[in-house]
Amino acid sequence: MGRWEPNARERLEQAAIELFLQHGYDNTTVAQIAERAGLTKSTFFRHYTDKREVLFGREELIRFFSDAITGAPESATPIEVVGAALDALAEVFGPERHEWAEHRQDVISGNSELQERELLKMARLTEAVSDALRKRGVTDPTASLVAEIGVLAFRNAYARWAAPKAKKDFAKIAHEELDGLRVAITALS
Amino acid sequence: MGRWEPNARERLEQAAIELFLQHGYDNTTVAQIAERAGLTKSTFFRHYTDKREVLFGREELIRFFSDAITGAPESATPIEVVGAALDALAEVFGPERHEWAEHRQDVISGNSELQERELLKMARLTEAVSDALRKRGVTDPTASLVAEIGVLAFRNAYARWAAPKAKKDFAKIAHEELDGLRVAITALS
Repeated sequence: MGRWEPNARERLEQAAIELFLQHGYDNTTVAQIAERAGLTKSTFFRHYTDKREVLFGREELIRFFSDAITGAPESATPIEVVGAALDALAEVFGPERHEWAEHRQDVISGNSELQERELLKMARLTEAVSDALRKRGVTDPTASLVAEIGVLAFRNAYARWAAPKAKKDFAKIAHEELDGLRVAITALS
Repeated sequence: MGRWEPNARERLEQAAIELFLQHGYDNTTVAQIAERAGLTKSTFFRHYTDKREVLFGREELIRFFSDAITGAPESATPIEVVGAALDALAEVFGPERHEWAEHRQDVISGNSELQERELLKMARLTEAVSDALRKRGVTDPTASLVAEIGVLAFRNAYARWAAPKAKKDFAKIAHEELDGLRVAITALS
């Protein structure tokens, strides 16, 4: 088998979710995931550092979010910048990813180690969003505050989007969440 | 040695910090910490699940924060409730804890595993604060939003309080941070 495998990540993610749902996360090995995907263990480890990461291949998410912040119009307010970033994420969370995301939530909700991992990834995302806002010249504490708001909108939107029988338009859900937070902010001030 | 040791936690925390600073976190064992504290390993494990936790004995923090939210006057706004909780924390972060906290920051800043642990603890604290606000009848998204704001104020205040040569009054620093966030909120809305 060659070093390059088309769609290796997608195949590994799909195989992993199927096995986690059938046999449980703890009872599934990397070797089994690779085999089900028709790939080798070493291909798995070229894409993911460990079994857990196949559910968190969202370094992508951090990059996407940060790049969208950097690329937002210069005139945009910090909240508008975050809104633009949430729009950009609709590309990552397309309808074709919905079923996988729904299964992923099932696996994570049954495992406290994975729940911790999820919390940690969100904390890292918040740091990355703050950094990207600061690079645009947004000062603290606004940069940290808006990062918390943006990631909160993202988390709530993702949970709704990945829920069974959810509406499938990520950007629409995300903007509903962000608007709800805007209303709450106005009521606080 | 009896099962009950006076000030066992304080003695273990002090011994641990000294050893971490002298020999490094990774090179220090639980046995060494217990020995330096004049206690047994089994006493250590009655107080902490592992070596790491000696730096994060802040389940206390979650309890303190939550109890203060529950006990705040009924008429207080969500932000005022969080302000009252930060006041209550001044009891935990008294001047006698300052030196330990400063050394703790040094140890954590040199170890990525400990930094992850810190992020995770703050995420758990945010969840606990949201829950406590919801129990007071604060609805979402305000409860989650105010929890993020409160924990952000706490984190910034703790970092300033634990910094070398910092002002020592935790409540005062915390209120400065919360006021700064209030101004930022008003500017956003």
